[in-house]
Amino acid sequence: MSDPTRAPELTARAAALDAADPLAAVRDRFVLDDATVYLDGNSLGALPAEVLPRLADVVTREWGELRIRSWEESGWWTAPERIGDRIAPLVGAAPGQVVVGDSTSVNVFKALVAAVRMAPPGRTEILVDAATFPTDGYIAAAAARLTGHTVRPVPAAEVGAAAGPATAAALVNHVDYRTGRLHDMGGTTAALHAAGALAVWDLCHSAGALPVALDADGVDLAVGCTYKYLNGGPGSPAYLYVRRELQPRFDSPLPGWNSHADPFGMAPGYQPAEGAVRGRVGTPEILSLLALEAALDVWDGVTTEDVRAKSLALTDFFLDCTAALLPAGRAEFVTPAPHAERGSQVSLRCAGAAEVMRELTARGVVGDFRPPDILRFGFTPLYTRYADALRAARILADVTEGTA
Amino acid sequence: MSDPTRAPELTARAAALDAADPLAAVRDRFVLDDATVYLDGNSLGALPAEVLPRLADVVTREWGELRIRSWEESGWWTAPERIGDRIAPLVGAAPGQVVVGDSTSVNVFKALVAAVRMAPPGRTEILVDAATFPTDGYIAAAAARLTGHTVRPVPAAEVGAAAGPATAAALVNHVDYRTGRLHDMGGTTAALHAAGALAVWDLCHSAGALPVALDADGVDLAVGCTYKYLNGGPGSPAYLYVRRELQPRFDSPLPGWNSHADPFGMAPGYQPAEGAVRGRVGTPEILSLLALEAALDVWDGVTTEDVRAKSLALTDFFLDCTAALLPAGRAEFVTPAPHAERGSQVSLRCAGAAEVMRELTARGVVGDFRPPDILRFGFTPLYTRYADALRAARILADVTEGTA
Repeated sequence: MSDPTRAPELTARAAALDAADPLAAVRDRFVLDDATVYLDGNSLGALPAEVLPRLADVVTREWGELRIRSWEESGWWTAPERIGDRIAPLVGAAPGQVVVGDSTSVNVFKALVAAVRMAPPGRTEILVDAATFPTDGYIAAAAARLTGHTVRPVPAAEVGAAAGPATAAALVNHVDYRTGRLHDMGGTTAALHAAGALAVWDLCHSAGALPVALDADGVDLAVGCTYKYLNGGPGSPAYLYVRRELQPRFDSPLPGWNSHADPFGMAPGYQPAEGAVRGRVGTPEILSLLALEAALDVWDGVTTEDVRAKSLALTDFFLDCTAALLPAGRAEFVTPAPHAERGSQVSLRCAGAAEVMRELTARGVVGDFRPPDILRFGFTPLYTRYADALRAARILADVTEGTA
Repeated sequence: MSDPTRAPELTARAAALDAADPLAAVRDRFVLDDATVYLDGNSLGALPAEVLPRLADVVTREWGELRIRSWEESGWWTAPERIGDRIAPLVGAAPGQVVVGDSTSVNVFKALVAAVRMAPPGRTEILVDAATFPTDGYIAAAAARLTGHTVRPVPAAEVGAAAGPATAAALVNHVDYRTGRLHDMGGTTAALHAAGALAVWDLCHSAGALPVALDADGVDLAVGCTYKYLNGGPGSPAYLYVRRELQPRFDSPLPGWNSHADPFGMAPGYQPAEGAVRGRVGTPEILSLLALEAALDVWDGVTTEDVRAKSLALTDFFLDCTAALLPAGRAEFVTPAPHAERGSQVSLRCAGAAEVMRELTARGVVGDFRPPDILRFGFTPLYTRYADALRAARILADVTEGTA
């Protein structure tokens, strides 16, 4: 399989692909150095250049000078829904359905409890993607325990077929965090609806890397983080999508004062606000939230279709490079080859994966390791070059040669 | 009551008090201007000077250069418990019992659900401070609904006496946000324990303004925000205290992966970590969290006893000034005069309170208005001067004269 004679051809291809890349200039909107090939944007996105100047102004002027007045005058109070509307087009949502705040885990809790409360009466189970990112499963179990449901794990591709008259809702990952497999949102959602169940999607590993069509696919509720392909910074707040038609029935298990119809009325009784705001809870972490807002500027003039085209071309090229350069039998591709089933990462199974990743990192290629034996390489189309993909494959070939 | 002839005496007293203030120099640790008398630190604390340089380093170097490596190398992963241990001495807690993250509302939810799960079997009600900050009541109702309890509102001072064999837990505000009344933590907690119930305290309006003795008072669980007297910045993350002896039984309703015993093992089954870490949920908002950490530097060498002494002297002086300068009958003191019942704010009831506060703000005295007719003035001992208190009283006298 390995064919080192192809190296010059690969170098020429990388150069040609980079020269023709319509997103090439977007890389300049980030703070990056050429010493590192950063393929871990699926865990923590790189730093957009806009963030620090914006944050300095938020701290110095908005907090330091205006202080309490900034809740109104600097637009802090409405930031969760304003920034939600910036994310909306990236996930295929019309305005007014996405609100930012809290962690992904907390939003999974809101979404699942709200979903089972909206399900037809008498439904007893929540289906959960069996290979889910663990926190989704833990929180689903917690939500099920509090609402008197059971959790049934089902492989993501079989969730639609598994749904039946007992199913209240299903929680599915759009892209599997470990394998990079992309699941069928439209088909699964339709099957869930046919069974009378609600569809809750986790977009952590898809939003910002490929087009997501929440509205068109009829999704009921969705959650996602913003620190991966949306580059919002470490632990930047997550978001919650609540389909417009469901908003009047969205009954939050965490009805904090930020979701009250008249939050400054300080009434003892809870009266929910209308719209996506109903998904808010307590006071948002403004510094993290406004850093995210600045980070979203990198999307100006960028379409998710362009991003998807480059993502597939990048991962195709990386697969080609590794096939050509890696010693035979050293690594097994885990990420599906068909485009329709591939997210924006390439996962490889290999012996000594943890050690291989340490060595790669030491040599300037940063991906990550997921137990027991997976190397993950995330390709963020906004700032990853084809030359980076080739360099990563070359160093990976060297390192795996060394471990043979 | 008003006696303008006392004005020169008040000016001299303010100068003498400021000259003798052992905390006077702490004001220089904040970014403040003399044009404004900022008496809203009980809503949003002023900006500590350390915050911007620290945040610039977090963004530029830790996120921008080290990127994903910072979770380990820059101590991001352990920040919630590390910063919890910085807050611990301010609330009278030995290390290992406080963890930072999420909003106050979310922490109230964790604390209350965990509390009723630890209560003796068969208990059916949660007592809630009848004058509570609204979100605590909304969340208590939500927690009660999910766990099959009822909520019974009781005036905070009567919570101990009201607790009985049906009481699972009580949620009480240490200082009432509207009146500034300080409640008896030790006595109420002891009475709750005598009834077999758990005590959950909300410290939002006391921590950082006066000594809190969670360990000594036997409190079971507590929550608090960090953006008021702890000056952590807009919406900075809240904290959760779980008494050490209860930690092994703390059964979180939000068992996110950050509270797992082996979070990077990515196991499908949940196994809680030991200690305060069990109160974590999802990925913390690192920028807001580390801004808070920098903000806590202002406490170096400052004791809560010194803060309390100055707080009482400041509010006493402000009460004196308003009594001397305000036209008779213009305002009614709502905050209790006895020191043992007073927090660090002065609340006044007056006609046209909303308009009075708008005018005060326009004239450089920033407090806030709480419906229906309360003016709140928060006195942060770390940066408020006696001269500020006098100036605020003078302008308030002018403004209320104008509204007569």
